[in-house]
Amino acid sequence: MRCVTKFCGMPVSPISSAFENEDNQMTRLTIDGERLVRRLKEMGSLGVDQEGRLTRLAATDADRLGRDLFVRWAKEAGLEVFIDRIGNIFAIYETPQNTGAAPIMIGSHIDTVIDAGKFDGCYGVLAGLGIIETLMAAGIHLARPLVVTAFTNEEGVRFTPDMMGSLVYVGGMGVEEALQAVSIDGKLLGHELERIGYAGKLDPGFLTPEAYVELHIEQGPILESLGRQIGAVENLQGISWQRITIDGIANHAGTTPMGLRRDAGHAAAKIMEFVHELAMEYSLEMVGTVGSICFEPNAINVIPSRATLTVDLRSPKEERLLKAETALADEIISISNALGVTVRSETLARTQPVEFCDDIVDRIERVAELRGFKSMRITSGAGHDAQMMARLCPAAMIFVPSAQGISHNPAEYTPDSDLINGANVLLDVVTDLARKH
Amino acid sequence: MRCVTKFCGMPVSPISSAFENEDNQMTRLTIDGERLVRRLKEMGSLGVDQEGRLTRLAATDADRLGRDLFVRWAKEAGLEVFIDRIGNIFAIYETPQNTGAAPIMIGSHIDTVIDAGKFDGCYGVLAGLGIIETLMAAGIHLARPLVVTAFTNEEGVRFTPDMMGSLVYVGGMGVEEALQAVSIDGKLLGHELERIGYAGKLDPGFLTPEAYVELHIEQGPILESLGRQIGAVENLQGISWQRITIDGIANHAGTTPMGLRRDAGHAAAKIMEFVHELAMEYSLEMVGTVGSICFEPNAINVIPSRATLTVDLRSPKEERLLKAETALADEIISISNALGVTVRSETLARTQPVEFCDDIVDRIERVAELRGFKSMRITSGAGHDAQMMARLCPAAMIFVPSAQGISHNPAEYTPDSDLINGANVLLDVVTDLARKH
Repeated sequence: MRCVTKFCGMPVSPISSAFENEDNQMTRLTIDGERLVRRLKEMGSLGVDQEGRLTRLAATDADRLGRDLFVRWAKEAGLEVFIDRIGNIFAIYETPQNTGAAPIMIGSHIDTVIDAGKFDGCYGVLAGLGIIETLMAAGIHLARPLVVTAFTNEEGVRFTPDMMGSLVYVGGMGVEEALQAVSIDGKLLGHELERIGYAGKLDPGFLTPEAYVELHIEQGPILESLGRQIGAVENLQGISWQRITIDGIANHAGTTPMGLRRDAGHAAAKIMEFVHELAMEYSLEMVGTVGSICFEPNAINVIPSRATLTVDLRSPKEERLLKAETALADEIISISNALGVTVRSETLARTQPVEFCDDIVDRIERVAELRGFKSMRITSGAGHDAQMMARLCPAAMIFVPSAQGISHNPAEYTPDSDLINGANVLLDVVTDLARKH
Repeated sequence: MRCVTKFCGMPVSPISSAFENEDNQMTRLTIDGERLVRRLKEMGSLGVDQEGRLTRLAATDADRLGRDLFVRWAKEAGLEVFIDRIGNIFAIYETPQNTGAAPIMIGSHIDTVIDAGKFDGCYGVLAGLGIIETLMAAGIHLARPLVVTAFTNEEGVRFTPDMMGSLVYVGGMGVEEALQAVSIDGKLLGHELERIGYAGKLDPGFLTPEAYVELHIEQGPILESLGRQIGAVENLQGISWQRITIDGIANHAGTTPMGLRRDAGHAAAKIMEFVHELAMEYSLEMVGTVGSICFEPNAINVIPSRATLTVDLRSPKEERLLKAETALADEIISISNALGVTVRSETLARTQPVEFCDDIVDRIERVAELRGFKSMRITSGAGHDAQMMARLCPAAMIFVPSAQGISHNPAEYTPDSDLINGANVLLDVVTDLARKH
C-alpha cells in the first residue's frame, strides 16, 4: 500500500544509522546484542507455571512481573513511562528539541500463550528499548520522539479478542467494553488491570504516531528455508475461521451396510480433503488448515453421529479469501446432499488482509541491504498489533527467522545473531523515520 | 457351513412345534408373549446408574441384580440352575426320559454396555426361558434336555476381551487367566464374581451341547428396511480393528506454506477416504468405518502434529478381510511417503469370520416360513456368544428387527410383535432340534 506520510517518497538516508562522529569519521551504530539476549532470557524466566511452562497470560500476576521488569528497564534507561486505560505501556524517549512532534512508535507485546517460547512479542518490545538506549548513548539527535509500546492481551488466550490492547488503542473496540471482557478464569479485565497496578488514566489513542514499526520473529519457516536474515513484511493475511458441525446418524459399525449410512465422519474427511485441495490449488496466495476435529460418540465400532471440525483459511488477498469461503460453502452443500448429513458452519473469526506501508517496507529492504543482510518481502501469516496500528498510521513489520517455523512452543528459537541483526535493522529504520523530513 | 450333527440332513418336522393334542387335534404352541415383554421391562429396570442410564456391567452389583432375577425366574419355572467357574449361568430343563442326552443350548447374556438398551442379550436369555416354560406347560416330551445359558461379560466393557464367558467355555481362553482379568475400575474378575456370589464350581465346558441357538436383536437396519420379521443368521463377520497413529509436525496454520507442511490431519483424512472407498467398492461383502479420531494439539490455528484414528473393517469372508487389510497397509505406506509423515498401525482386535451350521440355518428359515413370517439369510455384523459356541457344536442365530438399526443405546427398540415372533421361531427350532433323531 502506498501510504501518505511526511517521509513518503523520501529516499532512505544512505547513512541510515551511520553517523559522523566527532572526528568526522563514519560510525555505524549497533545495538548491544549481549544485553538484548540477556534481557530476553530474564524476561523468559518470569511466569513459569506449576508445570514448568512459561505462561504469562494477560493481566495475571505473571504478566505483572513481566510488565514491572520492562518498566524498570525503561526507567533505568531514563525513559518516561505511561499507562493507558487498557493497560498498554508506553516508554517514551523525548528531547527538548523534538517535544511535540509526532513520535515513531515501536511496539509489540509481552503477554504469552500457555507453554510459550520466549521470543514472541518480547523480542520486539525489548529490541525497541535497546535501540533507544543505543541512540541515547551515542548522543544522536532525532527530529521525533520514540515510543516503545507493550500492548495488552495480544495473544488473546485469557481474554477475547486477541490484539485487544492495540485494537482498543486505534478505536476498533471501546475501552469500556474491553475492560468488561471476562477471562477464561472468570475475571473482569478491568479488575485484573487494577489488581496488578496497570489500570492507567490515559485514554487509548492519546498519541498518534508518525509511523509504527514492529519487529517480530517470523513464526513460520520461510526465512530460514530460503536463507534470508530479514523479512520486510509487506502485508498480513486475512483470516477466516469457521467451525463446521456435521450431523449424521450413529449406528453400529458392523451391522449397518455402507449404503444405509449417514456417516458424519466420512463427511468430515471430505471437507478436510476439499480444504486441502483448495489451498494447494492457490498455494501461492492462501493457506488452509483443519487443525481440530471431534467425533461423537467417538467409538471404534460406532458410525459417528456428529463431527465437529475447524477450518482456518488465510490469504493476503481479500478476493481470494472470499472465493475460498464461497467454494467451501458450495462444497458443504454438495457433501451434505450426497451423504444425507446436515452441515452447518459458524464464523468464529474474520479479519481482512492488511497491507503495510510500502514506503516503510522499502526502507526495511534498503537498510537490510546496507547492513549486508539478505532480505525478502514476506507476508505475515499470523496476526500482530501492527495490523491494528496500521489503521492509525503508516505501519510495517520486520521479521527474523524462526528455527523450523516453530512458535507458541518452548522450542521457539531464533539464533542470537538473527535477533541482533533484526534489532540493528529496526535501529536503522527507526532512525531513518525519525530524521527531520 | 455344512456341519456334522445327528440331525444333519433330517427334514424339518412339518409340524415343528405343532403337536397333536390329546384330542388328536393339531395345536401350534406359542410362547407367552406378554410375559416375555414384561420380563424384559423388569430386567431393564435393574442397574440404572446415577445418571439414569441402564448400565449393568459384568460382575458388578447391578449385574448381580440381573443374575439374581434370572435365576429366580428359572427356579420358579422348576429348572435346575448351575454356575461354572467363570460365572456363566445354566438353567437346565431335563426329564427322566432324556437325562444323559446331549442338550440343546439356548444362550446369550444379561450384562450390558454403559447407557444400554434393554434388548441386547437379555432378549435371547429370557426368550429361552420362556420357550422352556411353554414346552413344560404343554407337557411336551423332548428327546434332549434344554439349557438356557447367560454368559459372563459378553459386552467386554468392564473386562477384556468381550464374549469372555463363552470364549472360556469353549476353551479359547484359560479360566485362570480369565479370572485374573482386571476391570476398568481396577478389580479382578475372580474376586468380583466371588463378591457377587457367582463364582461357581463347575468347569467351563462341562456340558457339550448337541446344538446351540441364540436369539438376538439384529442391531442393524437390514431386516427393518427390507420388511422381514426373521433373520436366519448364516455367518458372522470377521472383525479387524486397527489403531492408526500418524506423526507429522505441528506448525502455525498461518505462517507455514502448504508445500512445507507435514500435516498429520491431512494424512488422516486421506486414510478415512480410502477406508470408505474400499468398503464401498466391496460393499456387498464388507463394511469399513472410522469411528474415532483425535488430533494433537487439536487447535484451530495449529497444523496437527499427530492424528490417531481407528479403523473397523468387517467381512463374512476371510479372504476379503485379508485383502482389505493389505490394501490399507499399502495405502498407508503410499500416504506416508507422499505427505512426509510417519504412520504406524496396531491391531486392536482380529477375529476370523464364523460360518454357522447350515442345517440349523435351513431349519430357521423353514420354521419361519411355516409360521408365515418373511425371513432372509443374514450376516451378523456384531460379535455374539454364538461365534464362540460354534467352535464346540453346531450353532446358529435368529435375528429380529432393530428399529432403525439402533443398539447400545437407550433408543434400542424392537416392537413387541417382532420379539414374540422371534421367540416363537426359537421355540420351533429348539423343539425340532430336541426331537429324537
